[in-house]
Order: sequence, then structure tokens, then C-alpha cells
Amino acid sequence: MGRVTERRRVIRIRDGAVSTRPDTLVTEEPLEIRLGGKPLAITMRTPGDDFALAAGFLVSEGVLASAGELANIVYCAGATGEGGSNSYNVVDVRLAEGVPVPDITLERNVYTTSSCGLCGKASLDAVRTTTRWPLDTSPETPVRIEPATLSALPDRLRSAQRVFERTGGLHAAALFTTDGELLDIREDVGRHNAVDKIVGRALQQGQLPLSSCVLMVSGRASFELVQKAVMAGIPVLAAVSAPSSLAVDLAVETGLTLVGFLRGASMNVYAGEHRLALSAAASTD
Amino acid sequence: MGRVTERRRVIRIRDGAVSTRPDTLVTEEPLEIRLGGKPLAITMRTPGDDFALAAGFLVSEGVLASAGELANIVYCAGATGEGGSNSYNVVDVRLAEGVPVPDITLERNVYTTSSCGLCGKASLDAVRTTTRWPLDTSPETPVRIEPATLSALPDRLRSAQRVFERTGGLHAAALFTTDGELLDIREDVGRHNAVDKIVGRALQQGQLPLSSCVLMVSGRASFELVQKAVMAGIPVLAAVSAPSSLAVDLAVETGLTLVGFLRGASMNVYAGEHRLALSAAASTD
Repeated sequence: MGRVTERRRVIRIRDGAVSTRPDTLVTEEPLEIRLGGKPLAITMRTPGDDFALAAGFLVSEGVLASAGELANIVYCAGATGEGGSNSYNVVDVRLAEGVPVPDITLERNVYTTSSCGLCGKASLDAVRTTTRWPLDTSPETPVRIEPATLSALPDRLRSAQRVFERTGGLHAAALFTTDGELLDIREDVGRHNAVDKIVGRALQQGQLPLSSCVLMVSGRASFELVQKAVMAGIPVLAAVSAPSSLAVDLAVETGLTLVGFLRGASMNVYAGEHRLALSAAASTD
Repeated sequence: MGRVTERRRVIRIRDGAVSTRPDTLVTEEPLEIRLGGKPLAITMRTPGDDFALAAGFLVSEGVLASAGELANIVYCAGATGEGGSNSYNVVDVRLAEGVPVPDITLERNVYTTSSCGLCGKASLDAVRTTTRWPLDTSPETPVRIEPATLSALPDRLRSAQRVFERTGGLHAAALFTTDGELLDIREDVGRHNAVDKIVGRALQQGQLPLSSCVLMVSGRASFELVQKAVMAGIPVLAAVSAPSSLAVDLAVETGLTLVGFLRGASMNVYAGEHRLALSAAASTD
């Protein structure tokens, strides 16, 4: 399963000089996730941690919340690739006995919005009512984090990104303690996959909800990433780049602390500032 | 439909100084695409150009190839959001009479891979056999481009990105002539959406295949983006960042010119170098 990178020939042009050499690329392959034998989703991902990816995806979708609800995950032996060998690109998740198989509307194939009127507000409501671990929104929350601790995370994320260094082609997600200690990091061509792999491994190790952790992502904060943090019970999400409007709305609605543009000593806090130890009172201009 | 950006309150921290102010964010909302009334896909997108997005998506999936195959696209009046108003988040595409409605496997909901063994190679074959406009792979191709022309594109893309300037939160895709003239640019929270909007507008204007154009994207080059270029008959795809292994494989397989890490006078050419006017012969090290 060591298919994280591959070598390909590349023609390099540098100020008019042309040379040909081998180059290291990040591997991208499709993964089909089945639930009880029924196809549920296909994602383009970097191979590796596939069982964690499937488990994490099902946490995000509200199907799984603890290791005990999971019977097992297997590669489908019948899914053959080139030459009749197993492609290791189809996984089947079996739920433990008694765990309800969700009524997933396959026509839409987007579980969390399957029953909504398809507007932003309905999408927010779907997450808020589905999560098993509502975040603590009281001002006396026990989870508090120093801005200085957040400021140190981007460098720690980057220095732990091993595959990015070689390929420049991956997104990363990392889990930290509120003291800034790195707990886990995953890299993937898809940033939602990197988060699913983090959450899935935590589920497999019986660590959900991740209620005293900070999730850091290398890119932007979309609705989908905020949803994944909330569904895993993570109270703080920090992103290197900008959030979208719906990401901020979902963070406000659920009480998530959402930090964007986290770069050195600068950051923007879009929601949940009660978890940040802010020395000065915020001034309004 | 001017919902491209929205204002939200943000707490800014700059070297310990804390202030509160309004901030401009890129809008993210779900869009459901229906085909003949049947739900086909949901994508999180920036509102605007929704009909073009739906049309371009169907070009990528091999359903549409010309304006004549399209009867019309409408917002579903029955799809209501908050307060019973139309959310403008559901569009229905009707094909012209006689155009075959594809047998889309809704259980998988990924049209291009629905019949494959789900491995990279099968995904490549699906695109190669589906496209209506195989790319010209002969050494005497009439489409040729100067590396110096490519070098100028990133700056032109960035200076045309109006929403990015205000929000920092969008991907962009732009269509250029082989002389570097900007033909169209679209911005979206999802980079695949930005490309779909470009391709869909071209279809609506009867301009497919885009066989003498260059597509430039602001981020990385994934399998999906290469697929979209190929399905629209675009011979050159340039990206600011890294391609994945499967993106390169699909470009090689279909004869697409794929350029990555396009930054000033530097670039990497991963496939289809016969369209590039390279003055010196490539040396192999």
C-alpha cells in the first residue's frame, strides 16, 4: 500500500533552459466506500489509511460515532483492477449488530442534505441536529487556547508534511492539543480526505469526541470542513486561508471556534472567540 | 443573484492587537443539478452562472457536447428555502428531443467511473472513450504555444480575479487564446465549479470544442480538472501548482498538454510537449 507517491518524467523549463528528468508526484486513485455492501460514495484520494478514511467519512455523515458501532472494514476482494488483481480501491464498512443503517437517499448521495430544502440554512440545521456531541458554548468552557499557541501551529504543520516536501501536491490536516502538541497529521490530494483520515483513526482508537483538540488545515475552511470538525466533536478549527460564508455560519450556529488566515502572529477569528484567551477587550471600529 | 460575497463580523488579531470589524467572505451555497427532473449531483458552489455550471458539469460527464443538445435549464420553482421563497439552489436541465438521457448509475453517482473496475487505468479509459473531441496528438499539431506566453498567464489570471482580492477565498479558472489573450474567467469556492462555468458558457455560446484555447487554473491539477479540459476539447491545461499522478497519466493518455508549477519563467511540462515551442532540444540527465 505504499502508493503515496509515484515517479513520472517531466520536462523542466527554467528561464529558457530545458531539461528532462524524473519527478515525484502525489498519487491519486479513486476509492469507493460501501456501507453493508451498498455503494455510498466515490472519492479521489491518495492511497493509504483507507479504512480510516472510510470510517471518518461515516463519522462526518452521522453514521458512526464510536468504535463499538463498527463491526469491520475490508477491501472488497471482488473489486479487481488491471490484470485481475485487487485494486484496493473499494472498501466495505460493516456496522455492528443493532446499529441502524441510515436511510441514505442514494438519488442525492449527499447524506447530510438529503432531507433539507437545499439552502444554506437547512444545511446548517442538518449538522446541528445530527451531531452526537454538541459543542460547549458556555463562556466558562474548559477548552481555552492562547493565540500564541495557534500562531505556532502552521510551522509545525508544514514541518511535519513529509509528502508535500517531495511533491508540492498535497493538502494536510493535523490534530493538536490545546497546548500545541502535534497528535496526528495526514496528507491527501483532497483536504476533506485528510480530515476524514484523522477523524477515522481517532474513532478506531476510541478517542471520539475529540473535545480538547484543535484541527488545523493547510488550505481554506469550507462548509464541509467545518461540518467534519463539528461531527467529530472538535471545538477549534484553524485554517491557513479564508473561510466561506457558510463555513462561518455553521461555526456560529454550532459554537465552533473558527480561525482563518492563521499566519504567524496574525489571524482572523470568525466564531467561538470565547475559547481564545484574548488579553485585551475587542475594540469595535 | 448577486450573492458572490457576504459580510460577516470578524475579530482580527495582529501582533497581539485585537479589533472587531466587518469582513467580506466568499459566498458558499449548495446547488443541486437535476437532469430531466432527476437529481444527479449536489455541489457546494459560489452562486452565479448556475446554468453555465450545470451545463459545464454535463459536458464533463459526457452528457452534453453542443448547445443544440440542450433544450433549456431552469431554476426549480418548487425548491424553496427559508420563508418559502425560491432558494435558487436547484436547477433542472432538459435535453433536446432525441438526445439520449444517459443511464446514470445513481447508486454510485459518478458517471464517468460507474462502469469501470474502479482503478486509475479504468478511469483514464472512461474519459478517452467518452470524449467527442479526441485531441490532436500529431507532431504537426496546428496548436502551438510559446513558453513565454504561458509565463505571462498567472499574472493575467490574478489581476482579473476580482472576488479573490476582496475575500482571499476563491479558486479561479481562465480561458486564454494561444497568444495569451484572456477570453473568460470564473471564480468559485470550488475549482471544479470554476472550470464547469467556463465550459458551460462556451457550450451555451456554441463554442465547443475549445480546440485552440489554453485553460489556466489557480491551484493544483487533479484528475478531475484534466478530465474537464479533455471533455471540452481544450488542448492545453496550465496550473500554478502540482499535478497528481493520475492527472499526468490522463494527460499522457489523451494527448493533453499539461503544465504545472507555472511561476514566472519556470514551469514543468508533464505531457503533450509537442504543442510547446521549445527552442533547445530537451537534455536528459
